[in-house]
Amino acid sequence: MARLEVFGVEGLPEIVEGMDLAAMIHEAAAAQGDALVDGDIVLVTSKIVSKVEGCTVELDDIEPSDFAVRWSEKWDKDPRVTEVVLRESKRIVRQIGPVLITETHHGFCCANSGVDQSSSGAHGRILTLPLDPDATSRAQRSRFAGLGVDVAVIMTDTFGRPWREGQTDIAIGIAGMNPLYSYIGQHDPHGHEFRVQEICTADELAAAAELVKGNTSRVPVAVVRGFDWTRDDDASMATVLRDAERDLFR
Amino acid sequence: MARLEVFGVEGLPEIVEGMDLAAMIHEAAAAQGDALVDGDIVLVTSKIVSKVEGCTVELDDIEPSDFAVRWSEKWDKDPRVTEVVLRESKRIVRQIGPVLITETHHGFCCANSGVDQSSSGAHGRILTLPLDPDATSRAQRSRFAGLGVDVAVIMTDTFGRPWREGQTDIAIGIAGMNPLYSYIGQHDPHGHEFRVQEICTADELAAAAELVKGNTSRVPVAVVRGFDWTRDDDASMATVLRDAERDLFR
Repeated sequence: MARLEVFGVEGLPEIVEGMDLAAMIHEAAAAQGDALVDGDIVLVTSKIVSKVEGCTVELDDIEPSDFAVRWSEKWDKDPRVTEVVLRESKRIVRQIGPVLITETHHGFCCANSGVDQSSSGAHGRILTLPLDPDATSRAQRSRFAGLGVDVAVIMTDTFGRPWREGQTDIAIGIAGMNPLYSYIGQHDPHGHEFRVQEICTADELAAAAELVKGNTSRVPVAVVRGFDWTRDDDASMATVLRDAERDLFR
Repeated sequence: MARLEVFGVEGLPEIVEGMDLAAMIHEAAAAQGDALVDGDIVLVTSKIVSKVEGCTVELDDIEPSDFAVRWSEKWDKDPRVTEVVLRESKRIVRQIGPVLITETHHGFCCANSGVDQSSSGAHGRILTLPLDPDATSRAQRSRFAGLGVDVAVIMTDTFGRPWREGQTDIAIGIAGMNPLYSYIGQHDPHGHEFRVQEICTADELAAAAELVKGNTSRVPVAVVRGFDWTRDDDASMATVLRDAERDLFR
């Protein structure tokens, strides 16, 4: 019977550019008596990756476009932040009232291109999403392997969604395991073919991890232990991004 | 430190109308050595609730409308099923090609009004969503209390979503705990106010539960143990349903 354990990794230091995150997570988990083991899934909040990778923008360096200035003035926003949001996007999905839903360069649809003003805004500095979350996750997985453990890595962020209030954590980068579990061709115990085609396991794991990470506590990393995943070294979140032609809400 | 255990409840019998689900879950959990304890969250797949509550439709009894017949012929669907989908909806959100996204009478936006053809279709019978998932969850929570345990109850279903491939489990009914956790007014460890306003904890719990339930195994119930929730006897999924006026994708 499947039985999962989900726990946060505490005791990480304040994260700054250039740190070796995987090594720090490996050490912190061991220090709290939860040394990583083969098969663990390590879920890392994108914000600390952005910090390590220097995905910060000094607002004083930003010259906003006329478009950014006009819209920001109308809705009482910082035009420099709006400019960064636009630069981080390849397309605006919805721009209604003060809400700006964009498609990021990676292909994620979210508010404000995932730009994070919460932690650095007071210093005139904001965080953008990591440039290549899959590549970072793969590098972390390799680093964990070098430290002796075969783990999957998922990078997470907190996104809103249509129709429902409240945000949830979802996966934006992955390494080692396929983000989707397919039921195609399988049958239920009664022999009927499944209506459900695919489950986005990566997003469900990200959601489970958020439950122990929270946003107020300084717990930016969680581990899911006991989930049965199949090794897939070509895994990428690209397979989760629906083609624009197949999408009814873009 | 938060530490969750997530496990499935096995050994439930084949579910039929009129059964006392809460009592069966209580007994099955104990039988597998996981007797429910105060504070557990019990997550029940909607499909077994539909069976218990007799939310089944005999297709032979359905007289499809002209609208249902014309559209179904065009896309090679059973017009009787289409008719049931339309009856279960209060509005069509998208009808493009063979895809029918509706808003159910409860207010959930999903494919085919959540009508389940997978398990009963072969018998000319399909399942519809429970009529009042919050009410059922509250009744189950009361029943559990009568059996001596103070647990929260969440009813789950498997829904698709815009922009991303793969379905995930989400909450459609709740009892005992608020489905949303609000960060409004709170500050992070650096003293900055949160960008995230609210987390939909109920959906994250549903997602975590799916990881142990799966769809192929006969494990329609899971338990999350160790999550710190605050008792809220007025809880309802209604607070998660975004007002149509505030929604940009309806």
